[in-house]
Amino acid sequence: MSVSKCTRLSGALVKELLDSVDSVLFDCDGVIWRGDQAVPGAPQVINLLKEHGKKVFFVTNNSSKTRKMYADKMSKLGFNVNEEEVFGTAYCLAMYLRTVCKLQGKVYLIGGNAMRQELEAVGIQQTGVGPDHISGSQADWANVSLDPEVKAVVVGFDEHFSYMKLNRALQYLTQQGCLFVGTNRDTRLPLEGGKAVPGTGCLLQAVETAAQHQAQTVGKPNHFMYDCVASQYGVERDRCLMVGDRLDTDILLGSNCGLKTLLTLTGVSTVADAEAHQKSGCPERQGMVPDYYVESIADLLPALQG
Amino acid sequence: MSVSKCTRLSGALVKELLDSVDSVLFDCDGVIWRGDQAVPGAPQVINLLKEHGKKVFFVTNNSSKTRKMYADKMSKLGFNVNEEEVFGTAYCLAMYLRTVCKLQGKVYLIGGNAMRQELEAVGIQQTGVGPDHISGSQADWANVSLDPEVKAVVVGFDEHFSYMKLNRALQYLTQQGCLFVGTNRDTRLPLEGGKAVPGTGCLLQAVETAAQHQAQTVGKPNHFMYDCVASQYGVERDRCLMVGDRLDTDILLGSNCGLKTLLTLTGVSTVADAEAHQKSGCPERQGMVPDYYVESIADLLPALQG
Repeated sequence: MSVSKCTRLSGALVKELLDSVDSVLFDCDGVIWRGDQAVPGAPQVINLLKEHGKKVFFVTNNSSKTRKMYADKMSKLGFNVNEEEVFGTAYCLAMYLRTVCKLQGKVYLIGGNAMRQELEAVGIQQTGVGPDHISGSQADWANVSLDPEVKAVVVGFDEHFSYMKLNRALQYLTQQGCLFVGTNRDTRLPLEGGKAVPGTGCLLQAVETAAQHQAQTVGKPNHFMYDCVASQYGVERDRCLMVGDRLDTDILLGSNCGLKTLLTLTGVSTVADAEAHQKSGCPERQGMVPDYYVESIADLLPALQG
Repeated sequence: MSVSKCTRLSGALVKELLDSVDSVLFDCDGVIWRGDQAVPGAPQVINLLKEHGKKVFFVTNNSSKTRKMYADKMSKLGFNVNEEEVFGTAYCLAMYLRTVCKLQGKVYLIGGNAMRQELEAVGIQQTGVGPDHISGSQADWANVSLDPEVKAVVVGFDEHFSYMKLNRALQYLTQQGCLFVGTNRDTRLPLEGGKAVPGTGCLLQAVETAAQHQAQTVGKPNHFMYDCVASQYGVERDRCLMVGDRLDTDILLGSNCGLKTLLTLTGVSTVADAEAHQKSGCPERQGMVPDYYVESIADLLPALQG
């Protein structure tokens, strides 16, 4: 097998790579679907991989859906998936608080209903979901009523993010021992047609600036999402492939965890981006160079059908 | 006069320093007042400085008041001040857009009524003040209606800051040639009793993260506020003293502009903070070491009364 990085994956190399792995981790948006449309050929690829005995998992930084919501969406699009194969940041953050932090107490949640549901599924209560508009003066804001049981501030995607939520997070975070955890640092959510809306990274940055310290994040490129999959399914690093469309999250996660990496060009990053990292000579950027790239994961189909 | 830095200002040195300057710039909160109370002795100091023929100016990063609102507050607290002596970031930002950017067009304003008034006073129209709650889906947010006359996004303090405002700012900033200006980067607004609420720096950081580039800021430590004063009043740098309670804004502004600097201990920073900068050996931190410090600006009184 080729040892140079950022190799176009085609011909006999596809089968060679697939034979070398038992597990495949896929990012979702920009990889298996775009918006509400499956990437053409993607359902067949996923379903055939499973038929060939591969373990397939889905790792996504998007915190606005539960595992079940993802599995339902995938089924509708033709993917043969069950919710235990889905690792979104809403679920993974709940697991992180439960298994790593061993949180005793409630969460002040900047996030939505999916995060609330995943927290509740592991027995963690929250406060904060929904609108929180401003009233009163600065002195009122600084003395806003706080829930004494809250022991962690959690930041995920929240379309109701407001100054009052930012303020409430600050007041909790100035209390001794309050944990501070975020789902992910993606700065934008890309949409079809080149448009984008602000991502969780913007909200997290605002809270971090107020708190004057950084949150721990569980999303890609942090290794926790891989750990979550590996601990539940006994995945071997050197027989695992990470497939994604973003160099700074998906491919870097793969590098951070010692996985093989495959960039697909149906999403955010380009081959030119990868080559720029490769030529930079900067060790930190080398982790964002994938082993292989494809135009689309549909390029895996011939090897699976042959 | 002493050449070592961070010297306690007392005795004959006070008169020596005051004789060496014609103009004195004061920060407000933590220097001449705290919250709604004048620092004891501060009104007499300001009024006597003016009686002794010194030009006195007030430079504040707080964007939530107009020049007139500041002058009214000062008058009530016993300061003999007129609004032309006040340089807040609401006013200075309007001047910056008018005189430096020569803005032709409207502003999308993340900010309050004071900023709106100062913009309108220099003939700049705005849109955006007040609540802006979320509705619809991501596709709606990305296609939110924009005012075609907007040519700049401006970020100041805004208690109605929301995800929708962040999103609207991003949509404007992805348009070619849109200016991006912030009042200041203060991360927190300190209140009495050691409490604080999130400052404009948090909001600006969120918008910068979404926009993926930095705003130009007009507030301290940027030299623009000094330039504003100097151009209107013919101030000479080497005969000007900057008095403030924060090393990272007030004292650094003074250093950046070649002014003499005086730290007063009635606010945020301490002598230990200043000494830590001095001992750091880091050139960037040397600019945050004041020439002198006093417990309170009331320590200037004996020299003025003598």
